[in-house]
Amino acid sequence: MNIPSELNISRRMLMGPGPSDMHPRVLKAMSTPLIGHLDPEFVRVMDEVKEMLQQTLKTSNALTIPVSAPGSAGMETCLINLLEPGDEAVICVNGVFGGRMAEVVERCGAKAIVVEAPWGEPMACEDVRNAVATCAPKLVAVVHAETSTGVLQPLEEIGQIARDANALFVVDAVTSFCGCDLRVDEWGIDALYSGTQKCLSAPPGISPVTFSDRAVDVLASRKTKVQSWFLDLSMLRNYWEGAKRTYHHTAPVSNVFALRAALRLVLEEGLEERFARHRENGELLRDGLEDLGFTYLVAPEFRLPMLHAVKLPDGLDDASVRMRLLNEYNIEVGAGLGPFAGKIWRIGLMGESSSPNHVNALLGALKVLC
Amino acid sequence: MNIPSELNISRRMLMGPGPSDMHPRVLKAMSTPLIGHLDPEFVRVMDEVKEMLQQTLKTSNALTIPVSAPGSAGMETCLINLLEPGDEAVICVNGVFGGRMAEVVERCGAKAIVVEAPWGEPMACEDVRNAVATCAPKLVAVVHAETSTGVLQPLEEIGQIARDANALFVVDAVTSFCGCDLRVDEWGIDALYSGTQKCLSAPPGISPVTFSDRAVDVLASRKTKVQSWFLDLSMLRNYWEGAKRTYHHTAPVSNVFALRAALRLVLEEGLEERFARHRENGELLRDGLEDLGFTYLVAPEFRLPMLHAVKLPDGLDDASVRMRLLNEYNIEVGAGLGPFAGKIWRIGLMGESSSPNHVNALLGALKVLC
Repeated sequence: MNIPSELNISRRMLMGPGPSDMHPRVLKAMSTPLIGHLDPEFVRVMDEVKEMLQQTLKTSNALTIPVSAPGSAGMETCLINLLEPGDEAVICVNGVFGGRMAEVVERCGAKAIVVEAPWGEPMACEDVRNAVATCAPKLVAVVHAETSTGVLQPLEEIGQIARDANALFVVDAVTSFCGCDLRVDEWGIDALYSGTQKCLSAPPGISPVTFSDRAVDVLASRKTKVQSWFLDLSMLRNYWEGAKRTYHHTAPVSNVFALRAALRLVLEEGLEERFARHRENGELLRDGLEDLGFTYLVAPEFRLPMLHAVKLPDGLDDASVRMRLLNEYNIEVGAGLGPFAGKIWRIGLMGESSSPNHVNALLGALKVLC
Repeated sequence: MNIPSELNISRRMLMGPGPSDMHPRVLKAMSTPLIGHLDPEFVRVMDEVKEMLQQTLKTSNALTIPVSAPGSAGMETCLINLLEPGDEAVICVNGVFGGRMAEVVERCGAKAIVVEAPWGEPMACEDVRNAVATCAPKLVAVVHAETSTGVLQPLEEIGQIARDANALFVVDAVTSFCGCDLRVDEWGIDALYSGTQKCLSAPPGISPVTFSDRAVDVLASRKTKVQSWFLDLSMLRNYWEGAKRTYHHTAPVSNVFALRAALRLVLEEGLEERFARHRENGELLRDGLEDLGFTYLVAPEFRLPMLHAVKLPDGLDDASVRMRLLNEYNIEVGAGLGPFAGKIWRIGLMGESSSPNHVNALLGALKVLC
């Protein structure tokens, strides 16, 4: 037998597109001895998590739960529970994650009507309106914070376009949740998924999802079964809701404990205070990066506070400097994806990683390496 | 804002159908500060985990990885990657999890040819052979350790039936893995999924999966895309294999750390020694339960060592005694499922929960409560 030695990994400062650094209370929650997934004490934890998700998402949606897999599975949950073969869906694509949504739509036998904007720019509402007019969309889907490009997408007008077309409004909030303003009910969002390892600073592995009553009605009136048994919300809600909790699958108990701890930290800080912190540290980073010759991919009014997509100064070699940041300073920043590979960095200031100390550490290292 | 208090849960002895108790080293691994899912140090951890999975599964399959979601998603991964709409699959059903496989098969547009055996009995090979003869099955699937009934299914003959029909042999090893003999290569298993929270005693949330070269060939020659983007092994393997690791989704880093710690413990103990421990503690429990008037659902030669499905003594009230076990002794045992609800208990001695102390604690409590 070949047995590797005890785990021995470096202590990183996580300043990429996620995961972010964890608060010690969240790490401690991860090491809590387990209880069963049907234990009355775990049912109470589930209820507390649901209620804190509702508060942080600003929604009264009863169907507000963490799906037992990472954000990509949250995306799939929203789309496959709402779409049936032959349905049409307008998908906004201005980066990797919009493209992934279109791919998921096609894989469930629905038709994706893709509206595109250049990577690094928000969607133009006029384009969305035009696309919606060409078809009978069951839903309109858009990414709130496009992690591949650093673009913040204003949501309210697209939501109105969806409602006017009697379509559901679906939002990817993986990177925005708990890092900037997000109002599920007020903005008329019908289905939303997020991640835990971004501005919430909990370990990756589960994905908060919320469905409005309108979305639940669409789910309830399906003619075909949801293609995934594992992600079928009509069964999942019987485990997460009501008096009798019906076994579906074994919930990732430890990750739910950690999610609970992370949500408590968010509420203790206060949502508005947390958004302000992300904004202020983002400004500090921006000023320092611009001094060093980095330039922003995105126009100021559409920049994410928690993910900075920046073009490298002339002469700076992407891979070798990222490697030195990692090896010499234990700092992780993210590489560019797709057409931006080798051309931009994606620097994250998410959750616990959004601090002046993180900003100063990175800027100090870059002053040496650039 | 309504913020719940600090997590305050009881310390349980987990003797149900999973999760089982965790070793302190596994809990400690869960609280390791995170590193990125593309960090070279994490890539090394992934390689170590793959190699230890190969050793414990007794396979040289290159495609041996943990899927980033619980065992039910492992089941779905195996079936949806191999089946396409219109395919036929022979599914052996003698409990909840065989039934779940048939459900997953139907949801991917394939046809499930269901072979049944009474709950509490193993599949009859003759019935499987007859079913295979009536169709052109792409795969034959069976549950090795049926967690709903406590039945151990001998695998070799069914594997031979599948091979003779030129079908792939798919096995559910959620509960058997690391608790009793399991030989992927020697028994000709083409696709297998398992869980982590049973005899491996790692937290739930990821699912080890292995595919033989034959299964990989079937995957590679698909005419249609796998219906789930998240579980598409043709993309997942580009993240888990080879020189360049291509980002697919954010791996549940902490759970992979914990899986690594749990696999190390298995290899340190030795597989055969671990199987013997499960057998011996199972015998100790059996003797004690029979003294108390419990009777086994399953014939001796087909009983699982790690999950004991027992009928309650006359006059013992299922729910109230389970509740007292939990509240007064902090011991969890599992209820019966489906037709056995209220009639049997499922007592688990899995991984860290397979110890004489667990057995004696339960028997001592039952002597008072029965």
